[in-house]
Amino acid sequence: MIVLFTDFGLTGPYAGQVKAVLHQVAPQVPVVDLFADAPSRDPRASAYLLAAYAAWFPAGTVFLAVVDPGVGGKRPPVALEADGRWFVGPGNGLLEIVHRRADRSRLLEIAWRPPDLSVSFHGRDLFAPVAASLARGQPIEAEPRPDGFGRRPDWPDDLAEIVYIDHYGNAMTGLRAKAVPANAILIAGGTRIARARTFSDMPAGTPLWYENSNGLAEIAVNLGRADEVLGLKVGDRIEIESSVVSRQKGD
Amino acid sequence: MIVLFTDFGLTGPYAGQVKAVLHQVAPQVPVVDLFADAPSRDPRASAYLLAAYAAWFPAGTVFLAVVDPGVGGKRPPVALEADGRWFVGPGNGLLEIVHRRADRSRLLEIAWRPPDLSVSFHGRDLFAPVAASLARGQPIEAEPRPDGFGRRPDWPDDLAEIVYIDHYGNAMTGLRAKAVPANAILIAGGTRIARARTFSDMPAGTPLWYENSNGLAEIAVNLGRADEVLGLKVGDRIEIESSVVSRQKGD
Amino acid sequence: MIVLFTDFGLTGPYAGQVKAVLHQVAPQVPVVDLFADAPSRDPRASAYLLAAYAAWFPAGTVFLAVVDPGVGGKRPPVALEADGRWFVGPGNGLLEIVHRRADRSRLLEIAWRPPDLSVSFHGRDLFAPVAASLARGQPIEAEPRPDGFGRRPDWPDDLAEIVYIDHYGNAMTGLRAKAVPANAILIAGGTRIARARTFSDMPAGTPLWYENSNGLAEIAVNLGRADEVLGLKVGDRIEIESSVVSRQKGD
Repeated sequence: MIVLFTDFGLTGPYAGQVKAVLHQVAPQVPVVDLFADAPSRDPRASAYLLAAYAAWFPAGTVFLAVVDPGVGGKRPPVALEADGRWFVGPGNGLLEIVHRRADRSRLLEIAWRPPDLSVSFHGRDLFAPVAASLARGQPIEAEPRPDGFGRRPDWPDDLAEIVYIDHYGNAMTGLRAKAVPANAILIAGGTRIARARTFSDMPAGTPLWYENSNGLAEIAVNLGRADEVLGLKVGDRIEIESSVVSRQKGD
Repeated sequence: MIVLFTDFGLTGPYAGQVKAVLHQVAPQVPVVDLFADAPSRDPRASAYLLAAYAAWFPAGTVFLAVVDPGVGGKRPPVALEADGRWFVGPGNGLLEIVHRRADRSRLLEIAWRPPDLSVSFHGRDLFAPVAASLARGQPIEAEPRPDGFGRRPDWPDDLAEIVYIDHYGNAMTGLRAKAVPANAILIAGGTRIARARTFSDMPAGTPLWYENSNGLAEIAVNLGRADEVLGLKVGDRIEIESSVVSRQKGD
Repeated sequence: MIVLFTDFGLTGPYAGQVKAVLHQVAPQVPVVDLFADAPSRDPRASAYLLAAYAAWFPAGTVFLAVVDPGVGGKRPPVALEADGRWFVGPGNGLLEIVHRRADRSRLLEIAWRPPDLSVSFHGRDLFAPVAASLARGQPIEAEPRPDGFGRRPDWPDDLAEIVYIDHYGNAMTGLRAKAVPANAILIAGGTRIARARTFSDMPAGTPLWYENSNGLAEIAVNLGRADEVLGLKVGDRIEIESSVVSRQKGD
């Protein structure tokens, strides 16, 4: 299976042309759109979203991950093998969090170049053929790179920001729920938000945060749109207020 | 063929994860997106849209139908066989109109639970594996339920509301055209609208209603957007004005 | 491979029903969404977009091309073979530019009609079965027509208009970059725009035009949205200012 994680948008010709390449190079391999609306031109926020969702897919999955504002510039094209999954895309930090959380990883810089490489669409011309080759189990032209190559050690392990607003208006953060104290209050858009198990545990219109189906802390409003009710957008900072006072006293 | 009818939105990771499950459990079975934008969190309006569009598909089609605002709550997961088609989804009324219009039907409550069932994403964890099993012709773990189980006898046979606004701004109602008198005037957004065969029978800018390609009464404006011209949105009531006066006199 | 080029929108049931037909008639043939948001109800602007993008696909590709505001009216359904690719759709000018640029072409009027032809959805009922038959290499019921049948000789070879705004806010014109003098200034929305190789050659926020990955002159703003910064929308006229003065003097 090849999984697309991009900021191409679903509209327009980009995903279609990428899929045309994949079907030609790797016929019969299913192609799945995961995100076509990853945080636009923001490899850092995208990195946390990708890591959270990639972990759900089985080993052997190949991710074509393209959030690439510097296309045509100097960032290297890379392929990362991480716990049995492959990730192909720009070496601009997009794969940082996947890499950091992997038990076993192997980083390659893609050396292959197509005969006709457009300046602005490496997703189609360079990354798609490489991803399709990997999905077929074929070798690619690439050079091993040391583990530290192009890494972003200054990025946090979890990102206290909104990284995605979904179709329902729910706001995903870059925080793994397990990295947040269970009794923590999240503060977003000036509102203090308590944890719940799921929407329907709350009265209609009440904000809550919970562990979403891929492990991220997500902010929602039962039977409402959190983005509108709380005034949230991608990139907004989240504060974590942990009620540790009583525990400090008690310990 | 597996057909998706959901309010997941096309953006975001939901349809993609569902398709990943379908491809893994039922490889080679084509998956078609029918609606990803069914009336959001509204199983009742969605039920009329689903029934109108499902009837077009051949026997053997499996519908994964998920409009499920109560996910994680008490509504049962169900599978309905209706005139040779399967429908898998929440037992919240979403399948009511399909069920009501079926000549032959069989209702099952899904007993199977996956080892890891998320609280908020039964579409992926529960309904998709069941739909894929049915598409492969495999038995599922489920209990027969009497025909009246979870039914909505109080819902009308046809719904005099806008249930969908399409990409062109055309407004689909929950009324089958054949259930509306041929000479009826529909009143929507305060405008009286006459019937026509199709858009191009009317001057540009004129509202009309007609039987759409799936049998629903649909309101359009030739070479314009009915939603904007008439101020229509999903959920708006429709009045039906049947000019039976002259016929009563003449008979 | 069957490629969809339509103004159906990605939302709603249209693309899904078309794909259901394609999967039934031509199982195993991959179907790719290229554009679902071609210039709405505008076969002329769409014709330039289609020609630019179709040229990238290999011979043997079948395009289902439907931008058809006159559906249900008098325009004929046609199939065009052009340089080894097939195009199936309405004979309303949509295929004009593909036709004009082809070295070898063959135009057919589709004579076949399905038993149940809806008034408003020929994409599903008529064009999809024909496209699927062509993709399987099967003969279709159609009549040869002379090369001039339904042509639009008055349309220009290149269209000095915005024909598409993409997900990033980049504005594609209907001009092939190679048809524009290399040193030309494009004027769009009142702004004079110079050529560059790609976004990242320009400072953030600066407008530029460049040859996009399918050969069209495209207007962008590095790390910004050209549509918002420059106030552009589909249909806007472009002026071409060629700095030929100095060359005239020098020659």
